[in-house]
Amino acid sequence: VRTLYFDGEKSSLMAIDQTKLPSELKYIEIFTPRQLFEAISTLAVRGAPAIGVAAALGLYAIALRLEDKDTRGFRYSFKKIASFISSSRPTAVNLFTSCGRMIASLEYGESIEEIKASLKKTAFDIEREDVEMCHAIGRHGQALIKDGARVLTHCNAGSLAAVEYGTALAPVYEAVKNGRTVHVYAGETRPLLQGARLTCFELTRAKIKTTLICDSAASFLMQSGGVDLVIVGCDRMAKNGDFANKIGTLSLAVNAAYYEVDFYVALPSSTFDENLPDGKGIIIEERKPEEVTDMFFSSPISPAGVGVYNPAFDITPHTLVTGYITEKGIFKKPPI
Amino acid sequence: VRTLYFDGEKSSLMAIDQTKLPSELKYIEIFTPRQLFEAISTLAVRGAPAIGVAAALGLYAIALRLEDKDTRGFRYSFKKIASFISSSRPTAVNLFTSCGRMIASLEYGESIEEIKASLKKTAFDIEREDVEMCHAIGRHGQALIKDGARVLTHCNAGSLAAVEYGTALAPVYEAVKNGRTVHVYAGETRPLLQGARLTCFELTRAKIKTTLICDSAASFLMQSGGVDLVIVGCDRMAKNGDFANKIGTLSLAVNAAYYEVDFYVALPSSTFDENLPDGKGIIIEERKPEEVTDMFFSSPISPAGVGVYNPAFDITPHTLVTGYITEKGIFKKPPI
Repeated sequence: VRTLYFDGEKSSLMAIDQTKLPSELKYIEIFTPRQLFEAISTLAVRGAPAIGVAAALGLYAIALRLEDKDTRGFRYSFKKIASFISSSRPTAVNLFTSCGRMIASLEYGESIEEIKASLKKTAFDIEREDVEMCHAIGRHGQALIKDGARVLTHCNAGSLAAVEYGTALAPVYEAVKNGRTVHVYAGETRPLLQGARLTCFELTRAKIKTTLICDSAASFLMQSGGVDLVIVGCDRMAKNGDFANKIGTLSLAVNAAYYEVDFYVALPSSTFDENLPDGKGIIIEERKPEEVTDMFFSSPISPAGVGVYNPAFDITPHTLVTGYITEKGIFKKPPI
Repeated sequence: VRTLYFDGEKSSLMAIDQTKLPSELKYIEIFTPRQLFEAISTLAVRGAPAIGVAAALGLYAIALRLEDKDTRGFRYSFKKIASFISSSRPTAVNLFTSCGRMIASLEYGESIEEIKASLKKTAFDIEREDVEMCHAIGRHGQALIKDGARVLTHCNAGSLAAVEYGTALAPVYEAVKNGRTVHVYAGETRPLLQGARLTCFELTRAKIKTTLICDSAASFLMQSGGVDLVIVGCDRMAKNGDFANKIGTLSLAVNAAYYEVDFYVALPSSTFDENLPDGKGIIIEERKPEEVTDMFFSSPISPAGVGVYNPAFDITPHTLVTGYITEKGIFKKPPI
C-alpha cells in the first residue's frame, strides 16, 4: 500500500485516512487548503516524512485550482496558503521544509503555467527523494539486524509514516528481504495508539512477526533480555543530535541506556534542522486532553474535571543515542 | 468511601466493584467461593492490601455458610476453599498471607462455633491492621512531601487499593490534612487504566490537584523538572528490597534514577515476603491479550492475529529505590 500519491486524473492528493486504520483502509482526496490542513492536524496523514510529502503534493493540487489571473496574485495567494499549511502542526520539521521549498520554487517561471510547472517539479522531487531516502536508510540499517533479532520500535515510523518503506522499519523490511527472521515489538503508543493500530497493521500485512506491548512494559522486556536493539523514527533533529519524536521515545532511550541495549534513530536528512543548536528549541505540541481521557472510548475513562498533560512528543538527548541511521550511512555522531 | 467492609446483617463481604469506576460507584456482595475468586481475578477488588483484607473477610463470610457438621469436615472444606482463593492471582503476597493466617486460625477452637469465632477474630484483625498500617505509612511518609510538592504515582495505591487511605497516596492525604498543597501526577496505567480511572477518581473526590498523564510521558515530565518525587505501591517485596508492582513501575524507577528524582515505595509489612531472597523468585502474572487489544474499546485497536505480551507487573531492583515507606518509618534499606 502506498500511503499517499498524486492522482493525475483528479489532480488531487490521495492519502490513506490513518485515523480509520486498522479497521478500514480508505483513501481521502485532498485539493483544498482546508482539507490539507485538517488531514495533517487530525493525523489522517501523519509521520514526519509523510507530512512533508503530503504538504508538497497537496500544495501542488491546490495551486492547480488557484484562480488568480496574474503571477503576482498567484504567488501571493500560494504563499498565504503555504504558510497556513505550515502551521498545521508544530513539531515535524519536514512540514516547514516542504512548504519552504514549494514557496521558493514560485520564483522559477515567468507565467502562471511556468510557475505551476516549477511547483510540480518540486513536489514530485520531494516525493521521489523521500522514497529514495527511505530505501537507502533500509539498505544501511539492515546491517544492524542479525538473523533472529528482536527489535523494539515506538509509534509508527514505517511505510505509513512515509510514502513507502518508512524510516525506523525500513531496516527491518530490508533485513527480511535479505532472508533474515526479525521479531518486532511494537509499543502501542498512547494516547493515539499508532503502534497498536498502524505498526501492527503494516507488519502483520508484511507477515513479519509482531508483538504488541503497552508502552510501560518496554522496561521489563529489556530487563528480561528480550530486546536486541531499539529503532525509532524522528520528527526533528537538532545540530547536536537531540531529537524530537513521539512521546515515549525518551523513556525508551533512558531505559535502553540503563540496560545497555543499542538505541538507534532512523531519519532522512529532511528531518535535520540545521537552524537549531540543540533540542531545547524544539516546540513540543500539546494536544487536547480528550485524546487521553476519551479517545476510542465510549465514555471517558477518567472523572470529569481532572487535569491532563498531553505532550505529543518528547526530546531525547544525543547522549542516549547509539547511532543515527540516515540515507548516507550510520553515524555515531549527529550527521549535521 | 470505604473500599470494602463486612456487613454484619447480611454476613457478607461488601466491596466496591472497581471495574465500574469512575462512571459508577457500586458495591457487590460476596459470600461464595466463586464470587470471591471472581471478584479478585477480574479486578473488581484489586490492590495488594485490599486483596488481602477481601480474602480474609470473604473467607469468613464463606465459613459462616459451610454446612459441615463436624470440625474435621469443616476444617477440610475451609482449607480447600482457602487454597482455591489463594490461587485467584499470583503476584500479591498479601493474598497468600491472609489465606495462610485464616487457615492457621482453624486450629483455635474445639467446636465449629469456636473455630468460626477464631476465623472472625483473624479476619477483623487483618482488616484493622491494614487500616492502622496505612495511616502509619501516611504519618511517616508525609514528611517527604513539602508544601507545593509535585508527586508522581503509578496505578492506584490509594484508598481504593486498601480498606481506606491507601499506601502510596497515604503520605499525600496526610500532607494535605496537615495543610500542605500537593499536586499529584497520575500515570494512566495501561492496560487497565487504574491511574486514570481510580487514582483520578479518589483524588479529585478529595479535592487534591491531579493531572493525568500517559505512562510514557513521565520521562519527559521528569526531564522538564516537573516531578519532585515518585511514590508507588508494592505487590510483593523480597528480602533484598526488590519489589513487584504494576507494570510500568520499573520504567519510572529507571527514569527517576536517570534524572535523580527521589523514588519511594510505600508498603505495609504485610507485603514483605521473607521467603524470597530477591525479585527473581516473584511470579509475574501474564494477563490476557484482550486487555491490551480490546479493553474499553468498541472494536479492537490492533489487527487480528497480532501477538501480545501483557505482563501485569514488573520487578524493580532495590538499587533504584531511594527509600521504603512502611508503618514503622522510612528506611533506606529494605526493612526485612
